[in-house]
Amino acid sequence: MREDVEAVLAANKSFYAAIVERDPQAMNEVWARDVPVACIHPGWDALIDREAILRSWRQILSSRDAPILECRDETPYVHGDVAFVICHEIVSAGILTATNIFRRENGDWKLIHHHACPIASLPPDEDGPAPSGRVH
Amino acid sequence: MREDVEAVLAANKSFYAAIVERDPQAMNEVWARDVPVACIHPGWDALIDREAILRSWRQILSSRDAPILECRDETPYVHGDVAFVICHEIVSAGILTATNIFRRENGDWKLIHHHACPIASLPPDEDGPAPSGRVH
Repeated sequence: MREDVEAVLAANKSFYAAIVERDPQAMNEVWARDVPVACIHPGWDALIDREAILRSWRQILSSRDAPILECRDETPYVHGDVAFVICHEIVSAGILTATNIFRRENGDWKLIHHHACPIASLPPDEDGPAPSGRVH
Repeated sequence: MREDVEAVLAANKSFYAAIVERDPQAMNEVWARDVPVACIHPGWDALIDREAILRSWRQILSSRDAPILECRDETPYVHGDVAFVICHEIVSAGILTATNIFRRENGDWKLIHHHACPIASLPPDEDGPAPSGRVH
């Protein structure tokens, strides 16, 4: 389902656009409403309450520096109505690897979990994420 | 589906049992075979090749110190044939938060993605993971 891969990648892009554009309303739209959601910011414990997650993002988005400069190297994995994307987040302090899990909700892919963690560097490794979609 | 929650939690326990018991064959059994899998060790870039993932675990399991002492605070999220578990990994150097994604494969829940990241500490925070299962 090439359409599903593209829709999931678009939802992932919308998440990072909300960050780059510091748009709390867009961030609110990204997250699922019908099921519980979770978010693990780098170094934080998990937040599992939707309002707490959005509050944390409002704090991050209102900070002086835009936290994420770019999302790269997205690898999507689609499994029916649930999908996840692994990608790199390029920030001023270095590179993070993120796992973003999405669920189809009323026809739209909505974020149900975000987990980001710093990595030391991007190795020239053939095991690293490939740009191709993976659908199952 | 209380049975699904319990089965997912059992699969998550099997993953950590393979680590604690340093059992590479059990680790091999934990991971899905029918679909691509991914693994983000703390500070590493993503591994997306099943054999590379198992090789990394063989290296970790054959190191002198057992890396993970205990898995705690599991919060399962079940969405049909895909589920994920957020949990804490207690290691000698501190505490990690992990996201483990599972997929039902021939009736068994198999790991399709593991992402672990250190956290500073466990705050006494009502937004932290709760022990109850979440099924949708």
